[in-house]
Amino acid sequence: MSSAYARLTERFARLGVLGDTLGILQWDTATTMPPGASDARGEQVSVLHLMRHELLTDRHIGDWLDAAASDAQVAADTWRSANLREMRRRHFTALAVPDELVMAEAKATLACELVWRGARADSDWKALLPSLGEVLRLVKEVAAARAEVLGVSPYDALLDRYEPNARAERIDAIFGELASFLGRVLPAVLERQRERGRPVLPPGPFALDRQKALGQRMMEAMGFDFTRGRLDVSHHPFCGGASDDVRITTRYDEADFTSALYGVLHETGHALYEQNLPAKFRYQPVGEARGMSVHESQSLLMEMQACRSREFVRFAAPVLRQAFDGEGPEWAEENLYRLLTLVEPGFIRVESDEVTYPAHIILRYRLERALIEDRLTLAELPGAWNDLSRDLLGLAPPNDRLGCLQDIHWPSGGFGYFPTYTLGAMTAAQLFAAAKQARPEIPEALGRGDFSPLVGWLKTEVHGRASLMSSDEMLTAATGRPLDARAFEAHITARYLT
Amino acid sequence: MSSAYARLTERFARLGVLGDTLGILQWDTATTMPPGASDARGEQVSVLHLMRHELLTDRHIGDWLDAAASDAQVAADTWRSANLREMRRRHFTALAVPDELVMAEAKATLACELVWRGARADSDWKALLPSLGEVLRLVKEVAAARAEVLGVSPYDALLDRYEPNARAERIDAIFGELASFLGRVLPAVLERQRERGRPVLPPGPFALDRQKALGQRMMEAMGFDFTRGRLDVSHHPFCGGASDDVRITTRYDEADFTSALYGVLHETGHALYEQNLPAKFRYQPVGEARGMSVHESQSLLMEMQACRSREFVRFAAPVLRQAFDGEGPEWAEENLYRLLTLVEPGFIRVESDEVTYPAHIILRYRLERALIEDRLTLAELPGAWNDLSRDLLGLAPPNDRLGCLQDIHWPSGGFGYFPTYTLGAMTAAQLFAAAKQARPEIPEALGRGDFSPLVGWLKTEVHGRASLMSSDEMLTAATGRPLDARAFEAHITARYLT
Repeated sequence: MSSAYARLTERFARLGVLGDTLGILQWDTATTMPPGASDARGEQVSVLHLMRHELLTDRHIGDWLDAAASDAQVAADTWRSANLREMRRRHFTALAVPDELVMAEAKATLACELVWRGARADSDWKALLPSLGEVLRLVKEVAAARAEVLGVSPYDALLDRYEPNARAERIDAIFGELASFLGRVLPAVLERQRERGRPVLPPGPFALDRQKALGQRMMEAMGFDFTRGRLDVSHHPFCGGASDDVRITTRYDEADFTSALYGVLHETGHALYEQNLPAKFRYQPVGEARGMSVHESQSLLMEMQACRSREFVRFAAPVLRQAFDGEGPEWAEENLYRLLTLVEPGFIRVESDEVTYPAHIILRYRLERALIEDRLTLAELPGAWNDLSRDLLGLAPPNDRLGCLQDIHWPSGGFGYFPTYTLGAMTAAQLFAAAKQARPEIPEALGRGDFSPLVGWLKTEVHGRASLMSSDEMLTAATGRPLDARAFEAHITARYLT
Repeated sequence: MSSAYARLTERFARLGVLGDTLGILQWDTATTMPPGASDARGEQVSVLHLMRHELLTDRHIGDWLDAAASDAQVAADTWRSANLREMRRRHFTALAVPDELVMAEAKATLACELVWRGARADSDWKALLPSLGEVLRLVKEVAAARAEVLGVSPYDALLDRYEPNARAERIDAIFGELASFLGRVLPAVLERQRERGRPVLPPGPFALDRQKALGQRMMEAMGFDFTRGRLDVSHHPFCGGASDDVRITTRYDEADFTSALYGVLHETGHALYEQNLPAKFRYQPVGEARGMSVHESQSLLMEMQACRSREFVRFAAPVLRQAFDGEGPEWAEENLYRLLTLVEPGFIRVESDEVTYPAHIILRYRLERALIEDRLTLAELPGAWNDLSRDLLGLAPPNDRLGCLQDIHWPSGGFGYFPTYTLGAMTAAQLFAAAKQARPEIPEALGRGDFSPLVGWLKTEVHGRASLMSSDEMLTAATGRPLDARAFEAHITARYLT
């Protein structure tokens, strides 16, 4: 191996370790940090971002990349040459963005996240405007800079931050097809549910410690390694942390245990991906998770495909009854299954079902694209949100807390992130169908709370491949074809209309 | 101001922010991190240490220091010229230690701390030997390197890490005087206590949540700002965290509330120092706390001087009764006062009283000096510990858990740290006496749970001065003379023999 390649791996290892440090700080900010520390935390995060950026844009890297490109030993090794490809991508996209902008974006998003918490609680969009305006201004600068080096539109340059090679043009096509499919089937699904009568939520209150114990039990069943991770509480559930230290969070509602539980199941899907990445390429770009669509596919595969299946509910029903001393018809398996597959247009994305979820994403995708492309201002956004919500979901939120203030993504600078949720939902359906075909015992095992056949297949086909291939290459290797909406549509039809 | 000085402040600000990041990671390691993450955490901590070391030893700094030294504007400003003095000290002592050694020490101490937790629980000194041997080997290398540049002995070079300009020669003199004084008074104190009869510990169990609420109430009374700090749990109480994010910990004993409570009072003394440092010089060397003797003086002033005074106990007694629904003679003020000023030779340093505490320190000071000066091996240490414990305290621990395994300091590389505790106790006595002379209302205010006159005086005389002066200069400004043992001896005599 050339010394150039060795130098690159050393440099990227340092970048990876600094990334882990940021992961811990971000977890701490969301779960633990006292409110008065926000400015100081902003300093810490922005200095780390800046130092990472300096290390990544160091001009030596260009020389090393050139030298390593002509290294026959590297070229002969698929993992190492993929690592080189990922290093190159990161170096050149980072070079496009000046140091000051990196630092300013890190600081502004941290400040805005904290303002968002209060603004959401008070349903006060105006309170968020100044800091979100600053974030949007900086994100647009980043978009313009990345767009130039990638040779794509500014919005595509933002998409590419989360899902390499994603393009709005392809998303438009997929989302168009999906919107039309869902527009057709949603009335039929709602009608069918009406005929069957409404399932009943078991009566609470559900003590928080019992909800937490239940979540932990499910995480263990799924294979989460608690010696290398944690479960905590935050305003917005997430999966974060660091290598060998994967931390998920949820939020508890005393009146409805399904909210925290399915948050846990979702984040555990993310966490298993992180915990099962190949240790051999730890801290290297090729050893990290593929883009966010694949990441979301892992969470949605667990939350939606596996854990709302009839088989899983068969396993879960007695566990739930035991967890909450549940008795009576609300706790019957059939009622719980219908509750967990209830389709109901609502305001909150993270609480919505898998049939209406894509509408929440299409709404955000259209609005954030309009913001980036200067076709919409932040002041106009609440109105536009409500109009589009009426169009896509048939209802408009009564206040911004239940509308445009519900998500942390924009305050934290994540413009371009939302589409990956629905790309992830489709990827999940395609992967789950292929997994069941390859290992027909999966549904029956889920019925016993045994996730090992499913997780074993995912380890081989997804987790263990890290960033070796592109998302579509990985999907082709695992399922026989690149991403399309067929498996998702077949799943919706099978679960809700047969 | 010269651009050289501006460049220095910018560089040191980055160092300060990285130090804050390390503070959060260290807190997380001790309170939160899952056990399987220890290697990954080791990577994070050692990379941050290494990057700090690289930034601090950058050869530009020498040039900037030279240029700033001839800057008349800097010279005319006491704070800025003190800042320059501290920068110079840090740069040249850091230059003495090679990058690889910094990284190796950081990694070895983190690994050893984790081994220590298990070894202490199992009372298994042998289990600690390999990793502690590695720590000691590296600390000796650091000592040799620093000794050369400072022109002092290796042990003095370690002392200087925690208390700038401290020398074993002066410590020998002070500790000699103190050992002789305490050897004289201890029998008299014990005899007097015997005559009065033994105070009684109120019967538990004391629920942990009530103990925590009591600790928080006391922290509030003392002026701890919870919007910029936290109280948590760890094996060994400490004060850590970051700017505007000062995090103290304690450990709870269900059978004895005084252990956690006085841990909290102690760490709150540290925390107030950190929270009251001058914001204007945040992240600059001159804006940090003076050496560890002064830091320990702040914790011991609270724990020992203020919070075991008759006046404080008058305030605390009804608060304690209310906290634990206490009834009966054990909860009487006089019994509680005698309990909180009970002198009793014991095994555990952190649980010992202020009369026998110095013996614990003198023991560790002699042993660690012998280790550094190759007059003792780690294998011989448990025996030497027990012998010296018999000499100084009149008792030897029945096992190493209660003996040489009780403290985290050596596993975490803190050779040279222990003496600062007793220097701190003497500094505390000297400061508290001066405070009461300057503000005679202090005792009566403590009797009402009002710490503001005391903390106000400390803010002006200690906290607000940060590292503007040397410890002795600060003490002279605040009390009229440099450190000596007189005030401490007078305090012991007044509290225990009159």
